[in-house]
Amino acid sequence: MEQRVLPATRELLAASSLADLRIDDIARRSGVAKTTIYRRWPSLTHLVVAAMADLVGEREVTITDDPEEDLQRIALAGLRSLRTAGPSLPPLALTVHRHGDAQLRREYRARLIDPLRGALIDCLQRGQARGVFRADADAPLAVDAMIGAAIYRLAILHETPTEADAKDLVSLLLDGVRPQPSREREQ
Amino acid sequence: MEQRVLPATRELLAASSLADLRIDDIARRSGVAKTTIYRRWPSLTHLVVAAMADLVGEREVTITDDPEEDLQRIALAGLRSLRTAGPSLPPLALTVHRHGDAQLRREYRARLIDPLRGALIDCLQRGQARGVFRADADAPLAVDAMIGAAIYRLAILHETPTEADAKDLVSLLLDGVRPQPSREREQ
Repeated sequence: MEQRVLPATRELLAASSLADLRIDDIARRSGVAKTTIYRRWPSLTHLVVAAMADLVGEREVTITDDPEEDLQRIALAGLRSLRTAGPSLPPLALTVHRHGDAQLRREYRARLIDPLRGALIDCLQRGQARGVFRADADAPLAVDAMIGAAIYRLAILHETPTEADAKDLVSLLLDGVRPQPSREREQ
Repeated sequence: MEQRVLPATRELLAASSLADLRIDDIARRSGVAKTTIYRRWPSLTHLVVAAMADLVGEREVTITDDPEEDLQRIALAGLRSLRTAGPSLPPLALTVHRHGDAQLRREYRARLIDPLRGALIDCLQRGQARGVFRADADAPLAVDAMIGAAIYRLAILHETPTEADAKDLVSLLLDGVRPQPSREREQ
């Protein structure tokens, strides 16, 4: 049942807009009764977030004793789920985020963004606490640069990021692009 | 005339889709005759790209002898144009890029993406040539991380990036997050 309702929801979202999305249309397109849909997902918000989560797939996050290895591994898992979801994810995500529904945005963020983004920020912060990463670095900004680069390449430049890109991106953000940590400019 | 036609084009694009965009509707909404529109913009592609370029505004790029200062200055100019354009830019850009029209994507990229993105990559590469930036760093990837972070925060996280964020982002990518350039892991 889920595998009929969730793709139908995504197709309707992609074809029109969130404001035009109706349970009736989802029921018609999926061939699943409206009452059955409502029993499983109590609101359109639940259904839309479920349809997006289904597109992205499961993303398990394991934390070890090595923040840098964790960072690499979680970034790769994120990249794989982005590639699995494909170029249809960013427009759907934007559809959700353009919409005025604050609860939907919160649910989307809690279920689709924060698990991975939060785990990456956490890795950086653990590394900072141990002194392996610079304490004054802005961990959320570094993480948003990783995620943002992947999404920008996928959705705007039409270049699907590779696993090598993900590794390079993590290394780049960890190592910086300077030959030495020269700091004269900032004094 | 431009200031009636270009906003009307953006409004129609935002309300429906590129595939549904018709010169007739633009003429009706703007109150400008179709023949006048066609005389100024020979095709819908020209018109859509002009409407987006108008949203972003002029972005002058001055190159000096200091690649790092150039990078900071161009990144700030990019951030300002993104803030001027506001949250409606990324969905419009995605509308253009989801569409199958390769010529439109090329025009958009040549006019809206490459001037700034290319200038940023060029700064990094000049710095690499002079040895002030690490030669093995992936300059386009570093630039896409800067642009991607700003777009991700604006469009998905609903946090308009500040000028301080832009400076931090450039510093982060230039300095990296390590306290020392330790390289043991990569051997």
